[in-house]
Amino acid sequence: MAPIRILAIPGSLREGSVIKQLLRSLQPLAPSDVEITLFDLKDIPLYNQDVEDSVGFPPAVQAFRDAIESADGLIIATPEYNGAESGVVKNAIDWASRKGLMAQRPVTPITGSPGALGATKAQESLRSVLNHLGMYVMPRPALAIPKLPSKLDGDNIADETTARFVRQWLATFRDWIVQLNK
Amino acid sequence: MAPIRILAIPGSLREGSVIKQLLRSLQPLAPSDVEITLFDLKDIPLYNQDVEDSVGFPPAVQAFRDAIESADGLIIATPEYNGAESGVVKNAIDWASRKGLMAQRPVTPITGSPGALGATKAQESLRSVLNHLGMYVMPRPALAIPKLPSKLDGDNIADETTARFVRQWLATFRDWIVQLNK
Repeated sequence: MAPIRILAIPGSLREGSVIKQLLRSLQPLAPSDVEITLFDLKDIPLYNQDVEDSVGFPPAVQAFRDAIESADGLIIATPEYNGAESGVVKNAIDWASRKGLMAQRPVTPITGSPGALGATKAQESLRSVLNHLGMYVMPRPALAIPKLPSKLDGDNIADETTARFVRQWLATFRDWIVQLNK
Repeated sequence: MAPIRILAIPGSLREGSVIKQLLRSLQPLAPSDVEITLFDLKDIPLYNQDVEDSVGFPPAVQAFRDAIESADGLIIATPEYNGAESGVVKNAIDWASRKGLMAQRPVTPITGSPGALGATKAQESLRSVLNHLGMYVMPRPALAIPKLPSKLDGDNIADETTARFVRQWLATFRDWIVQLNK
């Protein structure tokens, strides 16, 4: 059986980002047939239709689109900036959405915050964009992790309750991908 | 009397953007004591907290923040990309919001679209972000212009009904600025 390939996209560029740590913590908690790869958005330029029309997709954008195309499903993780997903991740989605690339792809958002609310406003805002794109957004479980830094130990989830929930979320997303890609 | 200075921020980078044309069409329709200046976001990099923490705001970001600081009010115009404001404008807001720069500033969004809906989803999404920032978002009138290209003639509003509404909107925003900056 071919592995189920998930592309994990962090909406923060910071090297020490807890969102990146969270995404790197997922592989050991995933079902055995799932492979998770991260894609860093740092080289994605600002979206400009003039560039797309004149010279096409810049190399970093093309690499991002290729990674999406070859994945079976996407995990998009974002911090909450100003009550919504980061501009960094929205900008990347604006490039990725061109020519219908995002439609009908299984996807699940994930958010986390240092505070008590788990960046739920960012998650709702991001879900709205993904739904608008016609993506197959997994309805439940929704993963929004409050007090995220205290639940991580480097690239591992140290908190047992969180790890159990993440394991279940990943198993459900695996099944969602299989069900939707039939 | 000192003029009332409005900074107008287009959420599209395209040279021939109708959003930019729309912003350039505003000055002749504004009250006589209002001065409108455009700020192009093309040189704003992706938000990265590591950059902010290590070397501070990049020159283009500092110029953007200085322009906001010296303005009496902001007009933020955005096309609708994927059911929300552009990633370009959200990213710029993420930089601008640092250290509370955006709070308690008068602002009004403006959207327009080639289609029949005037980018109203983008307007609601942008309003939500501006409200979250604690900005003084003018409640009404809301300016969302459907079939925008057909209403413009270069950098002028050719449609009489639209021009009349824009004139009223600008007069109301002028008064909102005066009222809130007291």
